[in-house]
Amino acid sequence: MTSVLVTGATGFVGRQSIEPLLARGYAVHSVSRSSARMPAGVEHHIADLLDPAQRTALVARIRPRRVLHLAWYAVPGAYKGSEENLRWVEASLGLARDARQNGCDRFVAAGTCAEYDWSGGVCRERETPLEPATLYGASKHGLQVALAAWGAQHGVAVAWGRLFFLYGPHEAPERLVASVIRAGIERRESPCSIGTQIRDFQHVADAGGAFAAVLASDVIGPINIASGHGIPVSTLVNQIADQLDSRDLIRLGARPLPATEPAILAADVSRLQHEVGWRDGHTLETGIADAISWWRREVIA
Amino acid sequence: MTSVLVTGATGFVGRQSIEPLLARGYAVHSVSRSSARMPAGVEHHIADLLDPAQRTALVARIRPRRVLHLAWYAVPGAYKGSEENLRWVEASLGLARDARQNGCDRFVAAGTCAEYDWSGGVCRERETPLEPATLYGASKHGLQVALAAWGAQHGVAVAWGRLFFLYGPHEAPERLVASVIRAGIERRESPCSIGTQIRDFQHVADAGGAFAAVLASDVIGPINIASGHGIPVSTLVNQIADQLDSRDLIRLGARPLPATEPAILAADVSRLQHEVGWRDGHTLETGIADAISWWRREVIA
Repeated sequence: MTSVLVTGATGFVGRQSIEPLLARGYAVHSVSRSSARMPAGVEHHIADLLDPAQRTALVARIRPRRVLHLAWYAVPGAYKGSEENLRWVEASLGLARDARQNGCDRFVAAGTCAEYDWSGGVCRERETPLEPATLYGASKHGLQVALAAWGAQHGVAVAWGRLFFLYGPHEAPERLVASVIRAGIERRESPCSIGTQIRDFQHVADAGGAFAAVLASDVIGPINIASGHGIPVSTLVNQIADQLDSRDLIRLGARPLPATEPAILAADVSRLQHEVGWRDGHTLETGIADAISWWRREVIA
Repeated sequence: MTSVLVTGATGFVGRQSIEPLLARGYAVHSVSRSSARMPAGVEHHIADLLDPAQRTALVARIRPRRVLHLAWYAVPGAYKGSEENLRWVEASLGLARDARQNGCDRFVAAGTCAEYDWSGGVCRERETPLEPATLYGASKHGLQVALAAWGAQHGVAVAWGRLFFLYGPHEAPERLVASVIRAGIERRESPCSIGTQIRDFQHVADAGGAFAAVLASDVIGPINIASGHGIPVSTLVNQIADQLDSRDLIRLGARPLPATEPAILAADVSRLQHEVGWRDGHTLETGIADAISWWRREVIA
């Protein structure tokens, strides 16, 4: 069995990668700063990856053949500009070095659509200019530039999955899909923007499955991880409302659209579909239905 | 007096930045891994910047208002592909964080022409694509991307001086200018490439002076640090030979030109000259004369 170390294993995306990795036959090691309930067959480790000594000791103990590095600073509202982004660049480079020195030959990490120049509409890995507008996007992109060259030089196959807009179980409650669903369940109004802007929304379980597929493939370089379907935000909001029978509570246009938001921010997923061979399991309809049923349990619980 | 911490202060470029910084009235703190003779007025510190604890303690003790960060892994023949490049990205980000947390509001660091796509000839900071071909170039560029966004977000004025081809005192003896000068002094042959390729050669004292000028300015972002004069390598070699009366020892064409070497790799220095206000003190003739007199003392000593 090939061993894989999953960082950020208790996070929004990371938790969705565990079962797909087990299903693909990996010996899964997960790590987070605290204890966690993991499925049978997963060996969970407690370590702070921002502490070089803890990180190095962990990797030397596990000696993973592959790494799926999803850990990062992700506090909603703060993550885009926080200096913690630099600490995660440092920790990620150190993790990569430690892993290689312990026999790792494949390193897959999470990037972001925030690396791209957003003026072009549909983002393509090999064509769209990289012009991050935030410290978060710049830190991810700077890390990718260094890791790609390091992998090419030192015999590690580095892949970089750029995530777009995710929703689903364990989403931060103040984010769009979670907040509209919660409001609908509780029969509160949802003040939204006009909703004409086009975005790619993906169910987070598909993002986790896609990362497992990327890890199992031999594809290297940047790969968009997204649904491939750009839709108006109003379509998404109305899908939620229709399933909750709450169209009367949706207030499209009640909030201004920030001037910096592009009209279109979508993903070309040719690499993910044709080179990795991944297809999402959810449509917008089934994905939203799953998210609603998860939030119903949360709101009631 | 404004305090500045100079890293790599005993290195090829760093040692040339000290006097210009003193002349501009800075309170200069230098750091290297071992003791060093510095000019009067410089406070030298011994620390290994790759050790986070030593680095953090050093910066907390000095509390520099500005940082001139020139330290990097620079072993000739090894630096382009070494994993040490990643360690220096990590250390540089940590240094920047430590400096800001101790009151630093200007951070100037050394980049490289190896960040650029070399197919375009004359490199311009705002136009030439960034396509590093080596781990060294990619690590420097990844660091620049992250630092620029960090500075913009956190109120630190970050400037990035991209160096081209340097020569002068303390050059590594196996490099082009040093080896041709040494061979000429010792009356040995110099087997060279055909020499038609065009490069920008700058005397290292001018690079050191330019970094001091950049530090004293309020210019931010990438700035080419170079002479601005692209010349055929044969012109450089013949300039050395003419000054040493050793044209008979020069063997242009005796070595193959590596296929990866571009025909032209030169620098647009408009930003350095017009925004920073810097002009090199040396011409090719006076710069080579200085290098020859330095190597004469070295070879005889």
